[in-house]
Amino acid sequence: MDERVLTAMQPYFSDKFFNPSSPYAPAVAVRREYEDAKHRLAMCIGAKGDELIITAGATESINLMFASVAGHVVTANIEHHAVLEAAKRHEYTLVESTEKGIVLADTIRAAIRPDTQLVSVALANNELGTIQPLRDIAEVVKHERTRRLESGDMTPIYLHTDASQGVGQLDVNVARLGVDAMTINAGKIYGPKQVALLWTASYVRLEPQVVGGGQERGLRSGTENVAGTIGFATALELAMDHRKFESERLTKLRDSLQAKLLTAFPTAVVSGSQKKRLPGHLHISFPSVDAERLIFALESKGVLVATGSACAANKGTRSHVLTAIGLAPEVADGSLRITLGRLTDDVVIERAGELLVAAITHEVERSRA
Amino acid sequence: MDERVLTAMQPYFSDKFFNPSSPYAPAVAVRREYEDAKHRLAMCIGAKGDELIITAGATESINLMFASVAGHVVTANIEHHAVLEAAKRHEYTLVESTEKGIVLADTIRAAIRPDTQLVSVALANNELGTIQPLRDIAEVVKHERTRRLESGDMTPIYLHTDASQGVGQLDVNVARLGVDAMTINAGKIYGPKQVALLWTASYVRLEPQVVGGGQERGLRSGTENVAGTIGFATALELAMDHRKFESERLTKLRDSLQAKLLTAFPTAVVSGSQKKRLPGHLHISFPSVDAERLIFALESKGVLVATGSACAANKGTRSHVLTAIGLAPEVADGSLRITLGRLTDDVVIERAGELLVAAITHEVERSRA
Repeated sequence: MDERVLTAMQPYFSDKFFNPSSPYAPAVAVRREYEDAKHRLAMCIGAKGDELIITAGATESINLMFASVAGHVVTANIEHHAVLEAAKRHEYTLVESTEKGIVLADTIRAAIRPDTQLVSVALANNELGTIQPLRDIAEVVKHERTRRLESGDMTPIYLHTDASQGVGQLDVNVARLGVDAMTINAGKIYGPKQVALLWTASYVRLEPQVVGGGQERGLRSGTENVAGTIGFATALELAMDHRKFESERLTKLRDSLQAKLLTAFPTAVVSGSQKKRLPGHLHISFPSVDAERLIFALESKGVLVATGSACAANKGTRSHVLTAIGLAPEVADGSLRITLGRLTDDVVIERAGELLVAAITHEVERSRA
Repeated sequence: MDERVLTAMQPYFSDKFFNPSSPYAPAVAVRREYEDAKHRLAMCIGAKGDELIITAGATESINLMFASVAGHVVTANIEHHAVLEAAKRHEYTLVESTEKGIVLADTIRAAIRPDTQLVSVALANNELGTIQPLRDIAEVVKHERTRRLESGDMTPIYLHTDASQGVGQLDVNVARLGVDAMTINAGKIYGPKQVALLWTASYVRLEPQVVGGGQERGLRSGTENVAGTIGFATALELAMDHRKFESERLTKLRDSLQAKLLTAFPTAVVSGSQKKRLPGHLHISFPSVDAERLIFALESKGVLVATGSACAANKGTRSHVLTAIGLAPEVADGSLRITLGRLTDDVVIERAGELLVAAITHEVERSRA
């Protein structure tokens, strides 16, 4: 968590520990500060504060969106488990990603049925870092909506995106993306964990999963997360301020690391589109190397990298994303997901590159022995 | 929030910001610390760590319990909105509380139907502070369960309690209470907000509301709240350590404040059972006084008290609890809910008493003028 975020939150842990629904003045002040933080969050994505629901994380935000529609849903076979599992509670179609990890608008068009009410595609894939053509997909969804309206069919159809993986590096203005609903997580932008938002356009009808005191316009009951929301707003504003600079900076650093690794290991495979990819993201596989052994060797040197998706990582199963893009098992099992961030600089990337080359060389020699 | 709780959480805000599902060693260490905190929470209530689900608050915990049962549910007309709204998603019966704010086991017995699957009664009422005869209610539920089993009927029936309002002052050992499921909130015991637990006995079958990465045994997906859970464990241990001492201390302080107010205002009405009542709780009404004006007058002097329940307070409606116990409107509208806590001492209660007497005298004179 960014120090500036923690500083913004600190007063709310103890001094301003009031329930924003309480009637006395300090509690009323806390409510105003909470509403103000929602307004700041909304401004960052080109929306209004009363169009946001604050949730305890991206998973809850995604579940709230899916639970609010009836009928068929469409998503892709490379989506995060939260989206896939939420989709399975409906009739659903999973479209196939390209081998480059891109979800094409044409595949979405082909999957939409007359009873489809929700299309959900992440702005950027959490494993490959590939950036999806959301504007094209939005056109498809809008076209279907127009077709229905013109034929007198009132069945709604919405486009939702989980933008958690792209925020801070990509444009997340909801009008420019053309989406009807968006999830953003605070934890991925140096904000607090267990805070996310679900933005929905004014015409989207949500159904609460959690009922009670009627907070968040009755759509998500429970005492409001004041500290978390204020931290989230601070984190999102910082991410927006630094976005363009950070994107260029991280692209250069990532490209230099990628070049170094490909020079040292010419058989290494970089997965996913290299044109449409998050600046700070590198998914690279070393055939026949055991990635699990590699991460243990690397962590002892202070280099923390992941194999598959964090949620799947502790289950010992092969990533469904790598299977979906058709990566051969012996390549998939040697995959590292390397993410760069605000604390990554020239010196760090130089040193990490050396340690990676040394560790991978050791594993390659071991696998040959 | 207690300073010791914040200190315990602090390392997890930034330094130990790892996802407990990540594969590298520092993340694995964080997972161990998270599991250890759940174990500590479980020990405090006489349960096992793997019987707990950590949620983002009591409301979510209550909703998870209610969403896990089909069929009819039974609860009381003085319950918190979270319970009432969750009950309304089922066929439900609300039993009537006594005029003293007690939910009698006999009324529960009479409301149980062959298809009843859940009975939910809070350990202590959040407005009146009245303590419910949970052990008697547990006997009724067990008796019905035995009757069903003996007749070959496999329909489950569970007793759930929201103990958030009583923890820190009452015994919350699940075996001694005789409950099958329990909700506890961290925020009411000087722990962090947006953290609660749902404990269920091993034979209770839960159905997830939020699906995804499969955390919390697949029953509540989303990245685990490490900092919050560690803060919760610290807060609950502190609450347990101080419980007996605090209960005696708060009873004396509350009784002295009550005596002072009743002496000054002989027509004042103390609502709810005075025998079965939380030590730090005083619900007192001053007929014909406008409680809303009173809290504004008091807050300017630094005395923060509530009128009705916090969740309902900002809606300008009369408390459903006070209506349920048959309090006349002109009495109900002059009600204060005064809660004492860890920072309340002799000096504070003496001063608060003086300020209350002065403010109420002023309002009484105003209402006569």
